[in-house]
Amino acid sequence: RHYRIAVIPGDGIGKEVVPEGVRILEAAAETFGFRLDLQHHAFGSCDYYAEHGTMLPANWKELLTPTDAIFFGAVGWPATVPDHVSLWGSLLQFRREFDQYVNLRPVRLMPGVPCPLAGREPGDIDFYVVRENTEGEYSSVGGTMYPGTEREIVIQETVMSRHGVDRILKFAFDLAQSRPKKHLTSATKSNGIAITMPYWDQRVEAMGERYPEVRRDKYHIDILTAHFVLNPDRFDVVVGSNLFGDILSDLGPACTGTIGIAPSANINPEGRFPSLFEPVHGSAPDIAGQGIANPVGQIWTAAMMLEHLGEVEAAHAIVAAIETALRDPASRTRDLKGTATTREAAEAVLRAFAAG
Amino acid sequence: RHYRIAVIPGDGIGKEVVPEGVRILEAAAETFGFRLDLQHHAFGSCDYYAEHGTMLPANWKELLTPTDAIFFGAVGWPATVPDHVSLWGSLLQFRREFDQYVNLRPVRLMPGVPCPLAGREPGDIDFYVVRENTEGEYSSVGGTMYPGTEREIVIQETVMSRHGVDRILKFAFDLAQSRPKKHLTSATKSNGIAITMPYWDQRVEAMGERYPEVRRDKYHIDILTAHFVLNPDRFDVVVGSNLFGDILSDLGPACTGTIGIAPSANINPEGRFPSLFEPVHGSAPDIAGQGIANPVGQIWTAAMMLEHLGEVEAAHAIVAAIETALRDPASRTRDLKGTATTREAAEAVLRAFAAG
Ligand SMILES: CC(C)[C@H](C(=O)O)[C@@H](O)C(=O)O
Ligand SMILES: CC(C)[C@H](C(=O)O)[C@@H](O)C(=O)O
Repeated sequence: RHYRIAVIPGDGIGKEVVPEGVRILEAAAETFGFRLDLQHHAFGSCDYYAEHGTMLPANWKELLTPTDAIFFGAVGWPATVPDHVSLWGSLLQFRREFDQYVNLRPVRLMPGVPCPLAGREPGDIDFYVVRENTEGEYSSVGGTMYPGTEREIVIQETVMSRHGVDRILKFAFDLAQSRPKKHLTSATKSNGIAITMPYWDQRVEAMGERYPEVRRDKYHIDILTAHFVLNPDRFDVVVGSNLFGDILSDLGPACTGTIGIAPSANINPEGRFPSLFEPVHGSAPDIAGQGIANPVGQIWTAAMMLEHLGEVEAAHAIVAAIETALRDPASRTRDLKGTATTREAAEAVLRAFAAG
Repeated sequence: RHYRIAVIPGDGIGKEVVPEGVRILEAAAETFGFRLDLQHHAFGSCDYYAEHGTMLPANWKELLTPTDAIFFGAVGWPATVPDHVSLWGSLLQFRREFDQYVNLRPVRLMPGVPCPLAGREPGDIDFYVVRENTEGEYSSVGGTMYPGTEREIVIQETVMSRHGVDRILKFAFDLAQSRPKKHLTSATKSNGIAITMPYWDQRVEAMGERYPEVRRDKYHIDILTAHFVLNPDRFDVVVGSNLFGDILSDLGPACTGTIGIAPSANINPEGRFPSLFEPVHGSAPDIAGQGIANPVGQIWTAAMMLEHLGEVEAAHAIVAAIETALRDPASRTRDLKGTATTREAAEAVLRAFAAG
């Protein structure tokens, strides 16, 4: 087995944690006997933007299309490039141009991670957020009337297509069907967002009829965020639009202690284009450059990528190594009330991986 | 002093908790020497809809406009009327037609309420969510192309006006300015919702220049929800668009234990139209009719209404009575791990009010 992986560290702590993710990938290749062809890229970063005036080179599609996956860090450096420029010029463009219409994010309470919710133990919280990743609220359609005047009006359109909604729902129902609880929760807001969201509800019901074994419910996004805090054990697979999925997949990991360790996959399920794997956290300008960023999100991301590539055993071994390492405060970074540097925390996972 | 109050219980538990709110209002009038002229209305409910085919009578504006405030329960009974019909035909119409452009919701950890966040005490969490209440994501503009076919596309517009954004920001900055911490947090998503949200950010900055004493920061909504869970002590005044404010004002109360006790005000600050006061919770069909709903949200709502009317002393006395009553499990409903019925919980607050 031989995989071509594009490695794009991006900005800020992305540049610190991606090398640690790469080390676990290399260790896994060695142990489990597959080969990795890693192609490192400096583009997709604000440094690159400063030099070239664009986030990506003209031939980025030719470079990335033949790869098996993209291993991504984080992008954004608002002090020099506005977020909507850096993001839409890189990450959000990948998601769209490579039709990575599924954003999949596990929410799991891990041992050793201080849980902000009272009385919750590892095992209590274990679900997936499935986020639509290519349309919805993240449109680029709209504009401004009377700019700069008192009469100014700014409009942006949310766009949902049958094609776009049905395919994400199908993925979510398939996932729910494959899990022991077979339970799907839909995030909606059809009482307030009264055109697109009733449509979303209607498609959930239509799709649900094709999955009679899957128990389904729906909550409006406002009360759903409340249930994430009050009843996180209630969920199995949660599906939401681009914006709602975005919110829930930060809130979920926060409820399990930190977004610092959460991974995510941007998937093109048909495999026509490479899928992209990135931690949920961002570039974190406030702590960048200090060597204290938590590398576990990037390492768990490596496991998600390997699972996607079919290296399921390697993926499980990495997650197990993370669980072992997190139990020891000396192996945790300070965001998890530990004492480790980025490097030390990554070393601990590598040691556990080698030992396991 | 003499106030004309329209009382609209609405649906479900609204019909159970509004009478309890009315009792505290009457007790407060008695104690603090003002007069209440209460006008009870059956409209604004799904029962009314079943009979008349509309949520409101044709002359609702004539009936309500001369009042000093509207004391509202909850609306919605999805088993018989779809939420977007019942809500847009009542509550959301009031907000718009009466230009109640501020939705103000306190988030406060109260004694006796089990906090889902580990290690937080009353006093630790005490802030306001200020929500834009008349435009933004809750537009009724949009529609469907190729309905019912594979090519179906559904579009809904988010509309922000300079007028609408600036006035809510002004209210939020004024509120922050009046508080000891003088701190304002703006909810944004300008990295993903790249037309309306950068505009929101820009108006926050422009308004901020007029409030040099107010310290301000901003977070994208996804990470902001995470901070509500991880760092709720960080906030003082949080301002958001219609949708973001909606989410944060359910999540905030959940982080303080329950949305069952949270009040809210829909305010027309200029006083050209009556303001509307309602608990944050909804009609709760799942527990309606059992006499177990928590009345504290409606009672705290009564206090907010009195404060708005200028009866500040009475308002403070009610909040103090709530705090006293909540300390005793026998005075709390079962959602707060107590044993009281709706009536018993309300009685306890009334007793504390009379004693205090
Ligand atoms: C019922 C619904 C339309 C409403 C809203 O979203 O505004 C409610 O959630 C609220 O917060 O008052
Ligand atoms: C950086 C931002 C545009 C992005 C998003 O909203 O999709 C991020 O929050 C994420 O969740 O991947």
